[in-house]
Amino acid sequence: MSTLITNIGELTTNDPEVSGTALVLEGDRVVWVGSAKEAPPVDESVDVEGRAVLPGWVDSHTHLVFAGDRTAEFGARMAGKPYTAGGIAVTVGATRAASDAELAAVIKRHVAEAVSQGTTYVETKTGYGLSVADELRSAKLAAEHADEATFLGAHLVPAGTNADDYVDLVRGEMLDAVAPHVRWADVFCETGAFDEDQSRAVLTAAAAKGLGLRVHGNQLGEGPGVRLAVEVDAASVDHCTYLSAKDIDLLASSDTVATLLPACDLSTRQPLPDARGLLDAGATVALASNCNPGSSYTSSMAFCVTTAVLQMRMSVEEAVRAATVGGARALRRDDVGVLRPGARADVHVLDAPSTTHLAYRPGVPLTHAVWRAGTRVR
Amino acid sequence: MSTLITNIGELTTNDPEVSGTALVLEGDRVVWVGSAKEAPPVDESVDVEGRAVLPGWVDSHTHLVFAGDRTAEFGARMAGKPYTAGGIAVTVGATRAASDAELAAVIKRHVAEAVSQGTTYVETKTGYGLSVADELRSAKLAAEHADEATFLGAHLVPAGTNADDYVDLVRGEMLDAVAPHVRWADVFCETGAFDEDQSRAVLTAAAAKGLGLRVHGNQLGEGPGVRLAVEVDAASVDHCTYLSAKDIDLLASSDTVATLLPACDLSTRQPLPDARGLLDAGATVALASNCNPGSSYTSSMAFCVTTAVLQMRMSVEEAVRAATVGGARALRRDDVGVLRPGARADVHVLDAPSTTHLAYRPGVPLTHAVWRAGTRVR
Ligand SMILES: [Zn+2]
Ligand SMILES: [Zn+2]
Repeated sequence: MSTLITNIGELTTNDPEVSGTALVLEGDRVVWVGSAKEAPPVDESVDVEGRAVLPGWVDSHTHLVFAGDRTAEFGARMAGKPYTAGGIAVTVGATRAASDAELAAVIKRHVAEAVSQGTTYVETKTGYGLSVADELRSAKLAAEHADEATFLGAHLVPAGTNADDYVDLVRGEMLDAVAPHVRWADVFCETGAFDEDQSRAVLTAAAAKGLGLRVHGNQLGEGPGVRLAVEVDAASVDHCTYLSAKDIDLLASSDTVATLLPACDLSTRQPLPDARGLLDAGATVALASNCNPGSSYTSSMAFCVTTAVLQMRMSVEEAVRAATVGGARALRRDDVGVLRPGARADVHVLDAPSTTHLAYRPGVPLTHAVWRAGTRVR
Repeated sequence: MSTLITNIGELTTNDPEVSGTALVLEGDRVVWVGSAKEAPPVDESVDVEGRAVLPGWVDSHTHLVFAGDRTAEFGARMAGKPYTAGGIAVTVGATRAASDAELAAVIKRHVAEAVSQGTTYVETKTGYGLSVADELRSAKLAAEHADEATFLGAHLVPAGTNADDYVDLVRGEMLDAVAPHVRWADVFCETGAFDEDQSRAVLTAAAAKGLGLRVHGNQLGEGPGVRLAVEVDAASVDHCTYLSAKDIDLLASSDTVATLLPACDLSTRQPLPDARGLLDAGATVALASNCNPGSSYTSSMAFCVTTAVLQMRMSVEEAVRAATVGGARALRRDDVGVLRPGARADVHVLDAPSTTHLAYRPGVPLTHAVWRAGTRVR
């Protein structure tokens, strides 16, 4: 089955050598990009009537293996009211209590919601299980229902547990159980979660198992997360809300992507990160949703792009790149986030003539059509 | 024809005396609100399965009578690049050159887009004609295709025209022609547009013709707009990006609504207004889109609500009120923005169990169903 998408008003390929006004999908791949009149024969043709076409969003940071509801906690935070007994531990309790089927339904519902908004490639994490059995089933579910799975046993220290004992569990028995099911390991390296030495211990153990590395860092202050991520050649360090000049230099001279999560910063009333400083220094920037029920309950990559342009002084081109090929780099992939022959057929058609409209028309739903791995899903 | 909307998970009526989990629409009115088991007999019943129901958004400030495209100007602004020959004058030229049918199509397309996102009551303005003939046809089109029409001949001084001469035209021949077609007159009281005396001259002439008054003020600095709006008992002063303590006191002790336009502030990289100061002082606050192709090209009231909660320290309840009954107050109406017997049947069903999700889930499209004046439009 081959499909020609034609009459494209503006085509974003993220590859300077590839351009055109039409493209052909075959199976799950892009097989041709060019001018419509030179297109190869195809089974079907879709006229997008001058709309903008870009790669589907690559959401490189989500936490979708969860159960439970934290709406009231969010509402109280926004109203400036105290709210006891909130936080990640609430989600851990609900996740442990949920059945596998319930957890699978949550992941599938949120992935479907994201796909309907143009996201075609989704990473998701464990981290609300925090026991060997619950992290293992979370990892299996993540791997089954998302494109990439990350082990985040080191999300927080469970109540009543000694931190160093828990680190030993995470890098020992828990890692042994989970590693066969995931590509990545991640750690929440932050005051109140895991310190630099604990984080390094988890990451080096995961690397020894062959896992790629990711780090949650510099969300709440200029902590050691960025430094550690670069030291261990993590694919990405995520949040980067507070960065020193040294952190920016380190990122710019490394292969570690700075993944910014602006919806999280806004939802927790934190400052927005210094995207301009990172880009001007030459660092690679990704944008991701951080979709989770506590600090950033959105699946909207468009909202992240809009915020990046309107409030983080990224140009539209920079923000769109960060939310597509930037996310792909954060996952060390070159087959998504781009539209060129051989890439996965992940295609996002906007109900607008240009990607500029993603920032020009904040909040207006602009997803017109989506192909994911060659299948039209919207 | 009567319709029971039942199984409402959270009902926002904006009337402390009216509550329930079901409501009945008949013709274009709400006729009953209460508990489903006490509902009167109806022709049809719609089960909203625990979703949140609220009044449709009242968008009390838009500029939809326009033609032309300013996408490139916006993109250049966001990229920090110079862009000559942009601005309102570009839209004026394109609007004058457009046919009536073209202008009508633009208004209808944007109203439909807004309605599909839960907006059920739309004010729109003239102001891209700036000649007697072009303001007159703009006013007729606004009145035909929006719920309320406003005369904004005093939007800017056309190129090559003396400002005082233009003010005389606006308050004279132009007002005479337009007044029979509109309910409101507005003036852009700002440095570079119309000064305090010129603005007062336009507003007093319009009041003498029986028009209600509105003011664009305090967008670019602590100008005289708020003071003048309160002096002339304008229904609303819009923007309020820069307010002195005196301005806030004046608004709090007046019947003039402070209409905030956060999508405009973000789209022009201005600060956000001091909503907290206004609310704490007791002023009435409205939120509106300011939908226009230059400074705020969005029809998304949800984006305005989200921004108000995440970034302007409004609670969800305050922001939802401001975008519904607040907008109604800014238009001096008590039949929209509320759900109680006698109100217009403008109903917005969210694909979420509470209005909190409007801020909790930034960017996620949450409009499930919409009735506008009793007709289901989504
Ligand atoms: Zn995270
Ligand atoms: Zn305006």
